[in-house]
Amino acid sequence: MFEWEINAQEGAARAGTFYTPHGTLQTPIFAPVGTQATVKALTPAQVEELGAQLVLANTYHLFLRPGDELIAELGGLHSFMQWHKPILTDSGGFQVFSLIDTRKVDDDGVTFKSHIDGSTQRLTPEISIRIQENLGADIIMAFDECAIPTDYAYSKLAMQRTHAWARRCQAAKTRQDQALFGIVQGGIFSDLRAESAQTLAAMDFPGYAIGGLSVGESKADMLRTISEVNQILPENKPRYLMGVGTPQDLIEGVLRGVDIFDCVLPTRLARHNSAMTLTGRMNLMNAAYARDERPISADCQCYTCQHFSRAYLRHLVNAKEMLAATLLSIHNLYTLVNLTQRMRQAILTGQMQRFAQETLAATVASEALEEEL
Amino acid sequence: MFEWEINAQEGAARAGTFYTPHGTLQTPIFAPVGTQATVKALTPAQVEELGAQLVLANTYHLFLRPGDELIAELGGLHSFMQWHKPILTDSGGFQVFSLIDTRKVDDDGVTFKSHIDGSTQRLTPEISIRIQENLGADIIMAFDECAIPTDYAYSKLAMQRTHAWARRCQAAKTRQDQALFGIVQGGIFSDLRAESAQTLAAMDFPGYAIGGLSVGESKADMLRTISEVNQILPENKPRYLMGVGTPQDLIEGVLRGVDIFDCVLPTRLARHNSAMTLTGRMNLMNAAYARDERPISADCQCYTCQHFSRAYLRHLVNAKEMLAATLLSIHNLYTLVNLTQRMRQAILTGQMQRFAQETLAATVASEALEEEL
Repeated sequence: MFEWEINAQEGAARAGTFYTPHGTLQTPIFAPVGTQATVKALTPAQVEELGAQLVLANTYHLFLRPGDELIAELGGLHSFMQWHKPILTDSGGFQVFSLIDTRKVDDDGVTFKSHIDGSTQRLTPEISIRIQENLGADIIMAFDECAIPTDYAYSKLAMQRTHAWARRCQAAKTRQDQALFGIVQGGIFSDLRAESAQTLAAMDFPGYAIGGLSVGESKADMLRTISEVNQILPENKPRYLMGVGTPQDLIEGVLRGVDIFDCVLPTRLARHNSAMTLTGRMNLMNAAYARDERPISADCQCYTCQHFSRAYLRHLVNAKEMLAATLLSIHNLYTLVNLTQRMRQAILTGQMQRFAQETLAATVASEALEEEL
Repeated sequence: MFEWEINAQEGAARAGTFYTPHGTLQTPIFAPVGTQATVKALTPAQVEELGAQLVLANTYHLFLRPGDELIAELGGLHSFMQWHKPILTDSGGFQVFSLIDTRKVDDDGVTFKSHIDGSTQRLTPEISIRIQENLGADIIMAFDECAIPTDYAYSKLAMQRTHAWARRCQAAKTRQDQALFGIVQGGIFSDLRAESAQTLAAMDFPGYAIGGLSVGESKADMLRTISEVNQILPENKPRYLMGVGTPQDLIEGVLRGVDIFDCVLPTRLARHNSAMTLTGRMNLMNAAYARDERPISADCQCYTCQHFSRAYLRHLVNAKEMLAATLLSIHNLYTLVNLTQRMRQAILTGQMQRFAQETLAATVASEALEEEL
C-alpha cells in the first residue's frame, strides 16, 4: 500500500504511479475539489466521466457539517458521497487560518468560530487526525500553520509549529489504510523552505505537500520555491502542490517535479459564468457569444464541448439556469485533468520539454484567469 | 408521420404509439418540463438516462429569451438544447394569461409586458405558430385562452376565442414536420367542454390537449371533466392533459383515457428540497433524515436511489449544494416517468385496473404534494 513508482522522468518532471486502497493514481494529476463532500454542481458519475482520479474534500467543512462522526457512522466519506476512487482530505489548517478575524493560534492548536453558526471550535493536530480518520480518505494531511508567505518572522514561527504538529500527527495516527503527507512551509524564504523540506524528509512521510503558496506571493517566488523544495524532498515519494490550478501553473509545477495538484479555480470560475481554456478565460455572459455556434474549445473532447454551443451556454448563463454551472464545471475540470494526462504522456515519451514550451507559449494570457475571484 | 396506434386498451385506458420526426412515443408518458430549453439542473444525458421520451419547452420564455429567431438560426431547439428525442412546445397562451396584471386580451390576440424587461409584447395565433415553427418542436400547440375554470361566462367567451384561434393556427401553420394539437377549453362546465371537444374534433387535429385544468378547480371537477372530454374526443388521436403531474393524477388520468402528461411539479419540488414518491412527499431538510442510511425509496431504480442515502441528500440540502436539486430532480422525474412505464405494461397485460387500485390505495396522501408550492 502507498507504493510510489516513477514510470518515467524528464528533467525534474515525473510520470508516476501511487497505489492507494481505492485505486492507483497515474501522475501528474489534477484533483477536483469537493469541499462539502460534493464537487459542486456535478454527480460523481460526471466527475468520473471527465477523467478525474482523485477528489479532495475539506476537513474543516465536513467537521462542522454534517460532522465527521456522522460520516463515519454512515461508512466513511467514499460511501457517503459515492466516490469510489481515491480521496484526499486536507487538515483543516488552511481554512481555519483563513478565518483571520476569529481564530486564535497557540502552540497546541487553533480556536476559531464556525462560519456556519458562530460556535467556538478547536482544531489541534490530534483532532485533525481524528476527524480525517473518521472521514477515511486515502491520503490525509498533517495539520499545519499557513503564514503570510512574505513575512519572515511569522513564516519561521509557523514553520516550526508545522514541524512540531507534523510529529504529533504521526503519533496520533492509528489507521494503516491512510497515507499521511507532511506539509512543507516557510513562505518564500529559501533558508526556511530548505529547513522545512529537510526536517520533514527526515520524518519519512509516504508523501509530501508544498503548502503556503499561491496565496499572494509573486509568480516568480512561487516557482523558485517549488524548485528549491523539490530539490530537497526525496525523489521516491509523491509531491503535492496545494491549491494551485491554472493551466500555466500546472505545467510549470510539473516541470519542477510536482505530481499532484488541486484547486477550486475551475469550479469557482464555472459558477461565475466563465470557461477556462489553455489560452485564457471566456466569460459566457458576453453578448458576443449570443449567436456563436462554436463550442468553447474546438479541440476539447469534454461532454460540454462535444454537445453545446457558446450560444446555448450564453443563454443558460443569461437565464440563470443551474445547468450553466454544471456544463462549465465539466469543461473547466476536464481542461485541467486532460492537461495533466497529456503531460503524463509527454513525459512517458520524452516530449515534456517540447510540450511545455508549445503550450506555455499559448497560455501567456492565463494569469488573467485568477483575476476578480 | 404522426401516426397513432393503440397497442392495447383496458376500459378507457390506452397504451399507444405516436410517431414523430424525432422518434416514437410509447404512451402513456410523462414529459419533463424544460421551460428555458433546459430541464432545470439536468443535462440532456441525465434526462435521457431517467427514461424520458418527450420534453416540453415554453414558447413564452424562449420567445422572450433568447428569441425564437436566434434558435432557428442555430438549427432549432433540438440542436440548441441537444435533446434529440421528441419535443413539445406549448403555445405561450397559458403563460401570458398568467400575467394577470399586465396582459390585455382582444379577439385578435394578447398584449402583455415581458417579465424580464417590462417591454410590451404581443402574441396572436399567427405569432405563436411562427415562434413554434422557428423552435421546431415535433408537437406544437394551438394558441388558446385559459379562463378561470369556475366562471361560466368567462369560460364560454374564452372557449369561443380558443376555437377561432385554433382555426387561425391551422391556417397559419406551414411546416409539415410538426403536429399541431388543438386544446379543449370550457372550464368545469359539461356543456362547454362537450361543445369544445366536438368543435375541435370536427377540425381534425392530429392530437388533442385538455387545457385549463389543475388551476384551482376541485379534484372531482377535474376528473369528471377529463372523462367527459375524452368520451367525445376521437379515439384515434393522442390526448394530452396539460400541466398535471402528481402520481395520483397520472393514474386517474390514464384510467380516463389520457396519453400524455407534463408538469413542473417534480423539478420544482426538487428545487424546494423535496422528494416525490408514490406515497407522498419527503422534505429532505428534515433533521430526522440526518443519519438515515436508506435511499428515498427502497424499490426505486433511479440513479439517486441506487447510490445516495437520505443522510447524504439531507446534508446537500442543508449545505445548500446544487447537487441536491440535481439528485432530487432525477428521482422525482424518474418516479413519474417510471409510473407511466408501469401503467403502459399494465395496460398491455390487462392489469391496469388492478395496478391502479393497488397504487391509488398507497397514494392517498399525495394531494399534499401540491401544497405550499
